[in-house]
Amino acid sequence: MIKAGIVGGTGYTGVELLRLLSTHDQVQLEVITSRAEAGRRVDDLFPNLRGHCELAFSEPDHGVLADCDVVFYATPHNVAMNSVPALLAAGTRVIDLSADFRLRDAALWSQWYGEAHACPEIIERAVYGLPEMYRQDIAGAQLVACPGCYPTAVQLGFFPLLAAEVVQLDSLVANAASGVSGAGRQAKVDNLVSEAADNYKAYGVAGHRHLPEIEQGLSAMAGSAVELTFVPHLVPMIRGILATLYARLTTEVDLQSLYEEHYRDEPFVDVLPAGQQPQTRSVRGANQCRLAVTRPQGRDTVVVTVAEDNLVKGASGQAVQSMNIMFGLEETCGLEGVALLP
Amino acid sequence: MIKAGIVGGTGYTGVELLRLLSTHDQVQLEVITSRAEAGRRVDDLFPNLRGHCELAFSEPDHGVLADCDVVFYATPHNVAMNSVPALLAAGTRVIDLSADFRLRDAALWSQWYGEAHACPEIIERAVYGLPEMYRQDIAGAQLVACPGCYPTAVQLGFFPLLAAEVVQLDSLVANAASGVSGAGRQAKVDNLVSEAADNYKAYGVAGHRHLPEIEQGLSAMAGSAVELTFVPHLVPMIRGILATLYARLTTEVDLQSLYEEHYRDEPFVDVLPAGQQPQTRSVRGANQCRLAVTRPQGRDTVVVTVAEDNLVKGASGQAVQSMNIMFGLEETCGLEGVALLP
Amino acid sequence: MIKAGIVGGTGYTGVELLRLLSTHDQVQLEVITSRAEAGRRVDDLFPNLRGHCELAFSEPDHGVLADCDVVFYATPHNVAMNSVPALLAAGTRVIDLSADFRLRDAALWSQWYGEAHACPEIIERAVYGLPEMYRQDIAGAQLVACPGCYPTAVQLGFFPLLAAEVVQLDSLVANAASGVSGAGRQAKVDNLVSEAADNYKAYGVAGHRHLPEIEQGLSAMAGSAVELTFVPHLVPMIRGILATLYARLTTEVDLQSLYEEHYRDEPFVDVLPAGQQPQTRSVRGANQCRLAVTRPQGRDTVVVTVAEDNLVKGASGQAVQSMNIMFGLEETCGLEGVALLP
Amino acid sequence: MIKAGIVGGTGYTGVELLRLLSTHDQVQLEVITSRAEAGRRVDDLFPNLRGHCELAFSEPDHGVLADCDVVFYATPHNVAMNSVPALLAAGTRVIDLSADFRLRDAALWSQWYGEAHACPEIIERAVYGLPEMYRQDIAGAQLVACPGCYPTAVQLGFFPLLAAEVVQLDSLVANAASGVSGAGRQAKVDNLVSEAADNYKAYGVAGHRHLPEIEQGLSAMAGSAVELTFVPHLVPMIRGILATLYARLTTEVDLQSLYEEHYRDEPFVDVLPAGQQPQTRSVRGANQCRLAVTRPQGRDTVVVTVAEDNLVKGASGQAVQSMNIMFGLEETCGLEGVALLP
Repeated sequence: MIKAGIVGGTGYTGVELLRLLSTHDQVQLEVITSRAEAGRRVDDLFPNLRGHCELAFSEPDHGVLADCDVVFYATPHNVAMNSVPALLAAGTRVIDLSADFRLRDAALWSQWYGEAHACPEIIERAVYGLPEMYRQDIAGAQLVACPGCYPTAVQLGFFPLLAAEVVQLDSLVANAASGVSGAGRQAKVDNLVSEAADNYKAYGVAGHRHLPEIEQGLSAMAGSAVELTFVPHLVPMIRGILATLYARLTTEVDLQSLYEEHYRDEPFVDVLPAGQQPQTRSVRGANQCRLAVTRPQGRDTVVVTVAEDNLVKGASGQAVQSMNIMFGLEETCGLEGVALLP
Repeated sequence: MIKAGIVGGTGYTGVELLRLLSTHDQVQLEVITSRAEAGRRVDDLFPNLRGHCELAFSEPDHGVLADCDVVFYATPHNVAMNSVPALLAAGTRVIDLSADFRLRDAALWSQWYGEAHACPEIIERAVYGLPEMYRQDIAGAQLVACPGCYPTAVQLGFFPLLAAEVVQLDSLVANAASGVSGAGRQAKVDNLVSEAADNYKAYGVAGHRHLPEIEQGLSAMAGSAVELTFVPHLVPMIRGILATLYARLTTEVDLQSLYEEHYRDEPFVDVLPAGQQPQTRSVRGANQCRLAVTRPQGRDTVVVTVAEDNLVKGASGQAVQSMNIMFGLEETCGLEGVALLP
Repeated sequence: MIKAGIVGGTGYTGVELLRLLSTHDQVQLEVITSRAEAGRRVDDLFPNLRGHCELAFSEPDHGVLADCDVVFYATPHNVAMNSVPALLAAGTRVIDLSADFRLRDAALWSQWYGEAHACPEIIERAVYGLPEMYRQDIAGAQLVACPGCYPTAVQLGFFPLLAAEVVQLDSLVANAASGVSGAGRQAKVDNLVSEAADNYKAYGVAGHRHLPEIEQGLSAMAGSAVELTFVPHLVPMIRGILATLYARLTTEVDLQSLYEEHYRDEPFVDVLPAGQQPQTRSVRGANQCRLAVTRPQGRDTVVVTVAEDNLVKGASGQAVQSMNIMFGLEETCGLEGVALLP
Repeated sequence: MIKAGIVGGTGYTGVELLRLLSTHDQVQLEVITSRAEAGRRVDDLFPNLRGHCELAFSEPDHGVLADCDVVFYATPHNVAMNSVPALLAAGTRVIDLSADFRLRDAALWSQWYGEAHACPEIIERAVYGLPEMYRQDIAGAQLVACPGCYPTAVQLGFFPLLAAEVVQLDSLVANAASGVSGAGRQAKVDNLVSEAADNYKAYGVAGHRHLPEIEQGLSAMAGSAVELTFVPHLVPMIRGILATLYARLTTEVDLQSLYEEHYRDEPFVDVLPAGQQPQTRSVRGANQCRLAVTRPQGRDTVVVTVAEDNLVKGASGQAVQSMNIMFGLEETCGLEGVALLP
């Protein structure tokens, strides 16, 4: 059994990790930390876990965490980078769901997050936890930087086009929309039912922190710098991301075959039959990315639509997928659940 | 492996059975019928099942169904009663999720459903599939009548009070509220987003078909006829039922202990600690009934609040629970999933 | 033109007052205060008011408020009682939408609100602003205590039964449900979309602050003390309250006629034809209370269902209605808007 | 008083016309037709209208309609084109909210609607009812073709860019999202709460009927043929459209000033201050189009976000606006209502 710990378990990626790990055959959850809720039973905060988790939140303790085989950070940015180096030194493997180790360029990180990076020397040891692109590296990694929710959808959607070199690189558009859980379990007026339900809006239009992460990934896929316009929107639903991607074709290509071939062996990327469109509810609660590729009116603009559950394939499920790879387990272990529909 | 069939798999109880059975270790799904969708792949209608179910809908065929060990009816009323007798004669076990075999009194059935019962002689062979009350009978049953969603919540909520004989029997009130999936996957204007979202209403106030079923069950619990006022409401959510029950106490009793004792050994009934209230989301997707008992202001009216997922403990999960009992499996087999929160 | 001021305009009753008053022919809005948002344009916070309101929030200033003909308090409890006495002394009329002057008994107020009342000597000068019961007193009042949202629905629903003395007084039940705007524009985790959408729960079961206010009103209607069990619920919608009321009849009575007669001349209480049920959406944005009375199965329990918009007839619309009465205007002035459906 | 009639009043544009016209000072509603609901009171179908409309639906009757000063068609396509010619011959003015007279090219109409146009000779007499572009023509029109909901948002959003000739014309993208009321009051499984709530998807990606209408309008604005990629999405809310538009700049331009200048005198187009983003709730129920223009990262792609209520500025409100223009009334008459927020 893999002994696992979670740092910062009071947010939505935390409770989702708990949901997934509590039914994972090969994992024993040892510790879950929270300064704010230390001493409180986990299932008192998250009643869905009653009967599935006997733990209480505890103060973070290096020794306890270092004794784990793997520690997940389900924290806001700026937490992991301050304690991960010590865990790595102790030989513990770390999967960080926050933004701290996603960007390869510490200066770029500082620019978008408004502070210096605490351990720039560690960044190069981090593997970007997108298995569809870095599976081999993840297998040997001690530190995995789990991708953000928008970046997962946008990168998986553009990947076949960029790898095949069939689109312009300077005019990519990602119009993405997320459920409100993507904003986290923070008390903010903007995310109240009375503000965000029965409403729809764009946000972060002038610049969103996921932009550099996405461009970094897309550029790696293309082998050349790309320029992306990324506009996120807030949808009045709880879970789910749909990214609607636009690119200008530079050559003729059988798009449906291109996508089917590219993802033929991926357990968690599902290319829909031609004519179908993905819906976020079809992946609710499941570690699955569903996508479709369309060429409206046979013109030069290709449209890719990508659905994922932002808390599963966009966060905690993907983290478990990386853990499975890191520990040599079946990649789908603990991730076989069927999406909840309706 | 238990060979299972489903009759009428295009509704919400059907897709929920598929979700649960497709990950049940001891079940092999053999056939799923639908006249309207015969020939269509199941995962084309329900994309959450892509990768989990290779079946296509087929026309109902007695021989194929009779070869199953168990057949689930996920149909509207008036279907099962016309073909179940032949299946029983063939030795097949049947779990009917519809209303056809729930009422013991065929005349009462006719009064509420507006037509004659097709096989009144079969009614007495049906066991009412509420394990918390009829577990032993279910174990030996060939035909189980799975309770309705409202009746499950209301009966489980009142059960300890009635068994303990501590409330008036002629003034019970059940104020219940259901998500829209309780209305089924029918094309009705009333259940459109534009009609039922951001809205709340009572319906069926003058009389709802679940009333006689509930009164039959409560009377059996009390050992005497009860009179219930039952008012269902429609909540703008997809899944979930919350029943808020009111009864007048006739004696002093430690209500919290009464409930905890009564349900001590039940795997799927969770009595919350004093002071907590159940939320429907805490059981979303799980075969769980969560309840709380409160005595406001220390007065004579006791309030019981009961949450369940109408499609799981209120329908398909409860059906699988009965199947597990009928076939001697662990009662929780295939039903260990954690509720999806948020 | 009536010169009006609003104290505390950053909550939902505040913006709703602004919506109603900005199109009211006889009102000139002079000032709207907020310590937190002083200096910010109102339409920057509430973009629906762009083009309809040129004011900015300002620090509360006694002189400016005292120059108004009427001042509305759209504040949490514990604000009005500290500054209203000075306004009254200056001759200004006050309509308080908070709880400060609703209870006639200062000791009871202290018990439920956990502090001493700041001006108990003023309480008896306050008129309870429920026009259907206290229209004459409102006309002559200098200080009106606008009823809470639940109390309006519950009192209007029970009023005909109590006035006619046809129900038991010790076993009344009010099962009420509110949209999330009833919880105010406060940053609380519990009211986030990810927590309160697609969910339903009871709260305050053991005791809610609106209970003493409702019992005070019902007792006045009955001319005798009543005992009410009041259980509020949270519905995943923005606006609207539906109260489902239960009472035990003590005599035969034509309920439909009783209600139609009682409310025959009321402009804002609409008794539905027999067989119809009120929906909250049918009063969305309108100063209207719609209700229905039903006697299920012809038994002794009568069910009354009452819908209102908690921010209009349950708060700001009712406040404007009182203002119209106080200033001798047509009672419907500025309140003729049609509910927004769908 | 203008005598008005409505053909086909049982859909959402119909009830919205009723809401707006019932409080319009200069309009007397004479007749509202519906074959399906003939004889039924309007306020029985739409209870928000109780107290505001005494009419019953009636069978369509040419004479009665011809006696009106203006007749609104709130019907699906293929109704108006069969009876409008006779009304025009009788001298009645007509405002058609359906698609029948929007396209100037009858062959194109046939291609997208799958049948021959019934009166191609009438098409050229129709004025496209977008006041911001065709105000003068509307003033003299006998027949107005009211724009669709998506076309209004997309055209108003692109108009300043196209008129100023500052963007590429062959790579425009309109990523639009609509509330479910845009799909009409039809009983369809896809629009049930259980299907469309807590969900988000694109639809009509390969081709949507609003595409030719939008391209026709944009080409007129540009004075040259444009090519648009248009992808509509379904948002789990009732009302509202947000169009997120992307275009490639061909020259330097002060975008904020361009938009503010262009719409300086428009009563119903509101250019937000730089840095703000429109939300659909800020126009809920109001005849208002709010938009913002942004240039992310200072790159060459400009992003325009446009919000409107699909049933008001996207349909019935815009129709009333055209009526005001046609009859020489103040353009804002009856359209001064403030959006309902929250």
